[in-house]
Amino acid sequence: MPSELKTHWIGFDLGGTKIMADVYDSQFKRIACNRKKTKGHEGSAAGLKRIIATIEAAMLEANVTQRQLAGIGIGCPGPLDLKQGIVLEAPNLNWQNVPVKKILQDHFECPTVVSNDVDAGTYGEYEFGAGKKARCVIGIFPGTGIGGGCVYEGNLLQGSNCTCMEIGHIPLLSDGPLDGAGNAGSLESVASRLAVSAAAAQAAYRGQAPWLMEKCGTKIDDIRSGDLADAIQNGDTFIVKIVEKSAQHVGLAVVTAVHLLAPDIVVLGGGLVEAMPDLYLEMVRKTFRKRVLSTFRDVTQIVPAKLGDQATALGAAAWAKKCLERNSK
Amino acid sequence: MPSELKTHWIGFDLGGTKIMADVYDSQFKRIACNRKKTKGHEGSAAGLKRIIATIEAAMLEANVTQRQLAGIGIGCPGPLDLKQGIVLEAPNLNWQNVPVKKILQDHFECPTVVSNDVDAGTYGEYEFGAGKKARCVIGIFPGTGIGGGCVYEGNLLQGSNCTCMEIGHIPLLSDGPLDGAGNAGSLESVASRLAVSAAAAQAAYRGQAPWLMEKCGTKIDDIRSGDLADAIQNGDTFIVKIVEKSAQHVGLAVVTAVHLLAPDIVVLGGGLVEAMPDLYLEMVRKTFRKRVLSTFRDVTQIVPAKLGDQATALGAAAWAKKCLERNSK
Repeated sequence: MPSELKTHWIGFDLGGTKIMADVYDSQFKRIACNRKKTKGHEGSAAGLKRIIATIEAAMLEANVTQRQLAGIGIGCPGPLDLKQGIVLEAPNLNWQNVPVKKILQDHFECPTVVSNDVDAGTYGEYEFGAGKKARCVIGIFPGTGIGGGCVYEGNLLQGSNCTCMEIGHIPLLSDGPLDGAGNAGSLESVASRLAVSAAAAQAAYRGQAPWLMEKCGTKIDDIRSGDLADAIQNGDTFIVKIVEKSAQHVGLAVVTAVHLLAPDIVVLGGGLVEAMPDLYLEMVRKTFRKRVLSTFRDVTQIVPAKLGDQATALGAAAWAKKCLERNSK
Repeated sequence: MPSELKTHWIGFDLGGTKIMADVYDSQFKRIACNRKKTKGHEGSAAGLKRIIATIEAAMLEANVTQRQLAGIGIGCPGPLDLKQGIVLEAPNLNWQNVPVKKILQDHFECPTVVSNDVDAGTYGEYEFGAGKKARCVIGIFPGTGIGGGCVYEGNLLQGSNCTCMEIGHIPLLSDGPLDGAGNAGSLESVASRLAVSAAAAQAAYRGQAPWLMEKCGTKIDDIRSGDLADAIQNGDTFIVKIVEKSAQHVGLAVVTAVHLLAPDIVVLGGGLVEAMPDLYLEMVRKTFRKRVLSTFRDVTQIVPAKLGDQATALGAAAWAKKCLERNSK
């Protein structure tokens, strides 16, 4: 079998609510995409079958055979064993110690690289999006939680178990609300979409966000980023303050990350930013400029992500290529 | 001239109050050391002459000639142009745009590598001290300010102008005292030796630290780390609280750094830690364990630095060797 055949890549995004398989040609142009619901409650054996079925459906649509695959890159949540390609723990998926790499490699007979989903998304933005292959790119994605990633001189900072860039858990206030890990005042505790929705639900309950109350009520999981943007469009001015507060806190976290890693570009993505890019970016930049050392003030770019929900699959595939090329040297 | 001759290294620490030149053999065993006062007020031309004289005095003591030099590593304060080896700005030295690398290379006819002083100190601890050549080592040095460094997979994280790991300037409190850059609530503003001395001077003035009042008075530059340790030994219990507060804040900064970079080992050095290692380390560890994600709690080691004021010169020399070997590949 001539190795020229092995030209195509699979990028996979293993999310808590949906899974997505992309097929790319040798230039990382997407030629097919398949999505399914995750159905985490069915357990890991069923989950792995769904992953394989999703990839096969995308390959069929792309008219790409197994022999044409150069590799698979899969972005997964939670701490990972990178060498073995094992998802150690992913509560959202109901997974523990799942050997994703081995199972996909055996099934598709092609090399597979497992990476953290947010890391993969950051690498995607670095290679193909807002990161422009800069020397150092940091990605911050405020969503249900707040994830981060860093590409430093072309390589992801991963840590031994993919535990680098847990930016949602840095202490930001000396005291504050509890986050999911029971810590008070972390970035997530005050700035995640969950925290914003909880504040918005209180505003709705108090009569300060009538449009939102009418549309979503006070159940926080019914208040999505898009609803917050719509509420602002429809005159709920109190919601502007709440979103700006989140952006201020993210701005402080950007200050921290910049002082430690001195990135050229900080890419902001995730649900809140995508729904309200101008409002959000402006407040992050304002906080950043006010609080950062002058060395960085006019140097560090803070820009919106470009790839949306494509970032993780695309980045996972491109990172797989990078790792496989490095290993073959 | 056979290249086997080039076996010895110079390590140089360019500090605000003193300068130090070490001569090392090929195994980085120190065979001579010369120190002088910096005399920054004399300007950069005089400063460069003093640097050269200090190196030559150490070489004379070591009985090492210029022909035996493999390279010079010099740790400098302030933002640097790494490629050109220029100190861009060092207020403590009264230096601006000083081409250290070119001048030392021309004078000693051997390759010279300029690095940031705290980075060099961290690299020294990584190679020869408490860092034990771990995958990722972070150094934090609470002194007059608070400097940091990071060795990630054998390389210093430097940033384009040596602006990485400015940990003293991360925002730690949502409000707080002003630091030297005019920012409120940064780590330095509440935890540096200056901040601790200022709090101790207030305690002395209020009669809460009688031993310290007797020994040092209330002029903060007369209250050094060693005086604080002595005050505690002599019954000024209020000073314990003040030092513990500094250590708590450094502990929170360790939490932040660990969540971003997932180091295996965090090395704590600098005047405050050296003067009161047990008291300081215990409070940093306590704060860390209380506040960090469980993933890291029993994994990350927090240890005292081993090399004291040797770290920068030794690390600068070892880093020079590493850079020169890499460039010759």
